[in-house]
Amino acid sequence: MDTYEKIIGLAKRRGFLWNSFELYGGTAGFYDYGPLGATMKRRIENIWRDIYVIGEGFYEIETPTIGIEPVFVASGHVHGFSDPMIVCSGCDSAFRADHLIEGIVEIPDTLSAPEIKQLIDKHDIKCPQCGEVGMFGDVFDFNLMFKTTIGPGTQRMGYLRPETAQGMFINFDRLFRFYREKLPFGVTQIGKAYRNEISPRQGVIRLREFTQAEAEIFINPRDKSHPRFSTVKNTVIRFYPASHQQNASEGNSGDGDKGIIELTVGDAVDRGIVAHEFLAYHLVMTNLFLTRAGIDPARLRFRQHQPDEMAHYAVDCWDAEVLTDRFGWVEVVGIADRTDYDLSSHAKHSQHDLSAVLEYDTPKQVEQIVVKPDMSLIGPLYKDKAGKVLAALKNLEEDDLSGDKISITVDGEEILIPHDVVEYETVIKEVRGENVVPHVIEPSFGIDRTIYAVLEHSFAEELVDKETRNVLRLPPEVAPVQVAVLPLLTREELINPAAEIVEMLRKSGIFVSYDDTGTIGRRYRRNDEIGTPFSVTIDYDTLDDGTVTIRDRDSMAQVRVQIGELAERINAMMRSGFDSP
Amino acid sequence: MDTYEKIIGLAKRRGFLWNSFELYGGTAGFYDYGPLGATMKRRIENIWRDIYVIGEGFYEIETPTIGIEPVFVASGHVHGFSDPMIVCSGCDSAFRADHLIEGIVEIPDTLSAPEIKQLIDKHDIKCPQCGEVGMFGDVFDFNLMFKTTIGPGTQRMGYLRPETAQGMFINFDRLFRFYREKLPFGVTQIGKAYRNEISPRQGVIRLREFTQAEAEIFINPRDKSHPRFSTVKNTVIRFYPASHQQNASEGNSGDGDKGIIELTVGDAVDRGIVAHEFLAYHLVMTNLFLTRAGIDPARLRFRQHQPDEMAHYAVDCWDAEVLTDRFGWVEVVGIADRTDYDLSSHAKHSQHDLSAVLEYDTPKQVEQIVVKPDMSLIGPLYKDKAGKVLAALKNLEEDDLSGDKISITVDGEEILIPHDVVEYETVIKEVRGENVVPHVIEPSFGIDRTIYAVLEHSFAEELVDKETRNVLRLPPEVAPVQVAVLPLLTREELINPAAEIVEMLRKSGIFVSYDDTGTIGRRYRRNDEIGTPFSVTIDYDTLDDGTVTIRDRDSMAQVRVQIGELAERINAMMRSGFDSP
Repeated sequence: MDTYEKIIGLAKRRGFLWNSFELYGGTAGFYDYGPLGATMKRRIENIWRDIYVIGEGFYEIETPTIGIEPVFVASGHVHGFSDPMIVCSGCDSAFRADHLIEGIVEIPDTLSAPEIKQLIDKHDIKCPQCGEVGMFGDVFDFNLMFKTTIGPGTQRMGYLRPETAQGMFINFDRLFRFYREKLPFGVTQIGKAYRNEISPRQGVIRLREFTQAEAEIFINPRDKSHPRFSTVKNTVIRFYPASHQQNASEGNSGDGDKGIIELTVGDAVDRGIVAHEFLAYHLVMTNLFLTRAGIDPARLRFRQHQPDEMAHYAVDCWDAEVLTDRFGWVEVVGIADRTDYDLSSHAKHSQHDLSAVLEYDTPKQVEQIVVKPDMSLIGPLYKDKAGKVLAALKNLEEDDLSGDKISITVDGEEILIPHDVVEYETVIKEVRGENVVPHVIEPSFGIDRTIYAVLEHSFAEELVDKETRNVLRLPPEVAPVQVAVLPLLTREELINPAAEIVEMLRKSGIFVSYDDTGTIGRRYRRNDEIGTPFSVTIDYDTLDDGTVTIRDRDSMAQVRVQIGELAERINAMMRSGFDSP
Repeated sequence: MDTYEKIIGLAKRRGFLWNSFELYGGTAGFYDYGPLGATMKRRIENIWRDIYVIGEGFYEIETPTIGIEPVFVASGHVHGFSDPMIVCSGCDSAFRADHLIEGIVEIPDTLSAPEIKQLIDKHDIKCPQCGEVGMFGDVFDFNLMFKTTIGPGTQRMGYLRPETAQGMFINFDRLFRFYREKLPFGVTQIGKAYRNEISPRQGVIRLREFTQAEAEIFINPRDKSHPRFSTVKNTVIRFYPASHQQNASEGNSGDGDKGIIELTVGDAVDRGIVAHEFLAYHLVMTNLFLTRAGIDPARLRFRQHQPDEMAHYAVDCWDAEVLTDRFGWVEVVGIADRTDYDLSSHAKHSQHDLSAVLEYDTPKQVEQIVVKPDMSLIGPLYKDKAGKVLAALKNLEEDDLSGDKISITVDGEEILIPHDVVEYETVIKEVRGENVVPHVIEPSFGIDRTIYAVLEHSFAEELVDKETRNVLRLPPEVAPVQVAVLPLLTREELINPAAEIVEMLRKSGIFVSYDDTGTIGRRYRRNDEIGTPFSVTIDYDTLDDGTVTIRDRDSMAQVRVQIGELAERINAMMRSGFDSP
């Protein structure tokens, strides 16, 4: 049994993760969060909010999971969000074509569809389902968005969003106004996103429905410094720069620390490893979030995209990757400078201006030539069109006046106006600032993979009293149950004070469970396995001297405290560790 | 301008609610939560969690928004979740057929499709879109689930869930085990649900994508008392019982308090108005949640379903309704005793036992007659089938032995066994308990409608200094911004201490905004309009004596306090109101 099987086994048994729809046979790519899993997920999302929404001041918004077609035409998803697919005519099974040649070429995802097919034929690749050779059809692109119809009939095509980001981009102008038209500003969204995988086979790592937490930060393209960079520049991060990567397939192999360098982000920017301060600042925020959520820092690296791996418009892109036992290094976060790609594309497709005015410190006085049409000449020349000609002439910019004749468009028809029917005038215009399309810095988090990795990184098996104990060393702010209250025996005189302690701890904001079945040893083990950091035991000494035992999950050490100071002590331990004063 | 327009106008202008996809022309039935709206939504969801998850101890789970077909066949949605639809052949527009005859019959939703069509024809109903008469086709059922396909091809039909409930029902056996196989237990889910409305025309009241918060509480069908009923029985609730309703259409008219009676829930149960304690307890919880979220108690009532309005399996069903200016009484919560309908249906369709064992206090000894087949007779009689006959006989229950001959089925074929080839024996069996399918109590909350109603109920226009001020009197725990920090003037000597105060208040867990543009009066108004309960002003006295002003949104009264005690005072005011000590 490998670690993945152990974690998924524990997660299923104890109510963290369940295969969805198992009552009806299930379907690949869907997982339920059970009671403990959903609680842990909520806590991890709240840490993310604490860092991005409260800490950075990026308000959260919530936009629909269903989107209309024009949004995803502009974003590029309707035409470009696909995987190469192949179908075996022997058994009708569909596969990711590039996955079939993973052992043969190093970077299968840079090949074209015919190239993949050729390799499959040449190497006599067997159908993974029925084992037949030579029964594959052509390779074609399968769009990964779930499709649906909005309203009756075929009224309106809808797609389940492949990322939460687009809901933020298309609200840029409203958000810009909300933030009083100043750059930079950030906005966030936590919610479901969808990817209709052809044939997902990696359990909880590759889901068809998953949760993203994304921030879109709109910045001045002329200034990518970060106002608070000095506060983070000495943070050391484990970088895996593009130049250190032998080949891209290494990105997913489990070969430990090869090629990773530890460096302060200040140095990384100075040496040109990270493109600029703004991106580097968000590598630090990502590092902070992941380690606070319980990712082992020694199993975390930031891998830079290779130039041919990055989207054509991106300036620089880094993935936070976590090391897992079965899947090697797995991407959990992408942090990219997406430039003005998204806003420019939506501006073009929607025909709305999505630029920002960058105000000068003091308005500039600019000389400009403007046209003054002579109505006594234009009237007779253009008759009933004269009014429209006049209006068109007044709208012209200086650049439009340079040719032999002046070109205007009236009712869709081009009209060339001789220079002698207009006069020119030089005016002084005050320009408040410059129009720019903001650039976007995007940290995009996969919450489900993060949760799996936190479970794996916090899992340990230890031999205690000749028995194996499973323990999840989850940080107290992540553990679903924070304190277990355990009467030593199932006797009324112990159960009653235990119930009072449960009530008292709950009132102080601690998430408590109560358990009185089985031996105390078994109950400790049950709580170790779900990561409960502290257990409080009520015994006969409690009745004598009003003290209870606090037991530490990790060290299994115990300390006696007065009931009166229990809530305070537990809260201190949750912040600073066991037995902190 | 009616109240709805005012609220939506304010909500749009200030970043609470936006029409989705407006950049691309929009689509009916979808709304975005802007920065303030999403913050308020999060707070209202957290109040719900505080009551149901923490208070009641109902763990939250999270299941996919996409579901597979068998789930919704069993739930009845594939065949029964539809609205009657009609299409005008003049303009191709689709309509809810029952909506077209709303003025003609009192309860259009009890009519059959042909009956609706007959009425439309008889009354010469015009097409609301093109105005033509007599161009309508037949009335047919339009299924309201969004459909999609999971994976490539037509591999697997998927539906966007019409309610979060089914994800909890199909996990019953896992949840039952999680709760150590004891009844009652509850489980909750907050998440998106979908309803592909034919032609939604009620703005934010009728959404195609919306947020539900649902609790499913599995209880002993033999005992519907509630263990904590005594703690709530004196709570007074505004009941609108079925017997007080003249006709069902009254359910949506705005005729004030007609038919409403105020009664303690204890009395309501005693008089048989509410079916049982368990349901009544959850009416109280619903009342608690809605009023804490900011619903005006005088515009809230609990309307009982009419017998012909309720699902056939339900025992009793109540809707919490809120009074709105444009739409009259609007349902925001449904609280139903769904009996064993859901679990029995899933048990039948999945062929899994979904019952619970209700343990007796002490196991019962039961006498039972069992059959002892005589192999020396059966062997020769049934030859090569003898083994299977033997096995079938051993599986028989006492009841199967009463007829003239004993009937068994072997390989699909009935075989009648004469009584003389078997012997009988009386055995004593220990029975631990009784198998029952639990009943389900379901409070189901519409979060979006609740948010709209809270905005409307908290909205007021007041004449202050001859100007109208808009104010949202939101409860402090619901207001998106809790404190606005305002330096009196945009001068460095005031801005710097203001920035320190922002930092200090944030650290104490308060959500703070900072605003230094415009006159102080305008800034107060801006904050009144978004419901900020308290503003803190920094002026020149602050520099002299270290005090700041706290201004109360509702009374506009002000009090000066020392900066050192500011956080504590604000926190006290958030709990107990302005100027509380």
